[in-house]
Amino acid sequence: MFCVVLAGETWEEIYTQIEGAKTLTHLFELRLDYLEDFAEKELTKILERNYRFICTFRSKEEGGRKSCSPEKRWEILSKSASLGAYLIDVEWKHLYLGKLKSSIKKSPFFPEKILFSYHNFQETPPLKSLKDLLRRASLEGARWFKITTLVKSFSESLNLLSLIPYGKELGIEVIAFGMGEKGKLSRILSLLSGAPFTYVFPQGGKALAPGQLDLIQAKRLYEVLTSV
Amino acid sequence: MFCVVLAGETWEEIYTQIEGAKTLTHLFELRLDYLEDFAEKELTKILERNYRFICTFRSKEEGGRKSCSPEKRWEILSKSASLGAYLIDVEWKHLYLGKLKSSIKKSPFFPEKILFSYHNFQETPPLKSLKDLLRRASLEGARWFKITTLVKSFSESLNLLSLIPYGKELGIEVIAFGMGEKGKLSRILSLLSGAPFTYVFPQGGKALAPGQLDLIQAKRLYEVLTSV
Repeated sequence: MFCVVLAGETWEEIYTQIEGAKTLTHLFELRLDYLEDFAEKELTKILERNYRFICTFRSKEEGGRKSCSPEKRWEILSKSASLGAYLIDVEWKHLYLGKLKSSIKKSPFFPEKILFSYHNFQETPPLKSLKDLLRRASLEGARWFKITTLVKSFSESLNLLSLIPYGKELGIEVIAFGMGEKGKLSRILSLLSGAPFTYVFPQGGKALAPGQLDLIQAKRLYEVLTSV
Repeated sequence: MFCVVLAGETWEEIYTQIEGAKTLTHLFELRLDYLEDFAEKELTKILERNYRFICTFRSKEEGGRKSCSPEKRWEILSKSASLGAYLIDVEWKHLYLGKLKSSIKKSPFFPEKILFSYHNFQETPPLKSLKDLLRRASLEGARWFKITTLVKSFSESLNLLSLIPYGKELGIEVIAFGMGEKGKLSRILSLLSGAPFTYVFPQGGKALAPGQLDLIQAKRLYEVLTSV
């Protein structure tokens, strides 16, 4: 339910973050773009552990740490899936809708292991556009879709949250929430709306996206909201 | 922002409830259908006080305490408005859409002082129907509309909350939230969605509608949600 984002520069940092969170969740996002030394041996080792890992190599365009060609990113993600990742994060705009589309569709991990993602750090497009995006993804066969956009009001968060039940009608598990100060609450309300999980940062760490909560804050807030 | 529902059988009870809540809100709903002895003199006196009163005579069909003809209810509401009520609650289905419609439209209190209300204790109709209802109300010239329905999931609450910004586009102040256990949270989220107020019951009193929170619970929850 809580997916703790692991963004360490070293594998040691990552293991420390897992240790700090493992009593509260078994779901982690491994931000491969943060690692200074990406070693396949280490990746193999971590993916053998008894947790669920969402492997992500965020592009520079969508807020990633370092530049990396789409080919290389897809190679790393594909490798992660073959090594046992629970899901791999494939950016809808900066990876899927490019020249690799047919390779991705032909991959044995499509669509079950692929979490498509769409980020917009500038604004929240109209609800109609976001629904169009999901309908298009559904036609492509998507099973998982993450949509997060900068929100300027709670009403914009409501639009994002409404994509979660909308996705279910299309057969897509949607993770949707608002980014930024005004979106904080929606990160938890997304769970109440039916999202399979929400992203948080490890306690003592720092937010990797605007408005992200840490695991403890998120858990407390979730408890308050579900005990009403 | 919090509208405390006053449902006393005697005026004394009502004054006690006001005393208990007046440091936290100046907005009250006066449930005239609960009063055993409805005295115009008392109504005049209370409406002269320095608070805002929404006067309601709920029909038996929509959960009211006692039977009363539409004519009599409209007479009482109309009188309340002339005595200075902030708003009068006019049931869309069981008062407005009846033979009194033209009298109501001709009243000097239409539309500014009229809060139309729609209750559904059985279910939440599809979002499309609820939007149709608001569009129709907008064509009639409505300025205020309360919509509350029994919700079976948080997603249904989200639909109701989305009517608040939708109403603003139509020029209507909408008070919308879900009834029942699953709707509790939406009573507070409605404020974050732009509703002008939400209904609560006085501390130490009892809920008058399924899932209603008391003033203190509501205030605490609001503080948690807005401090995230």
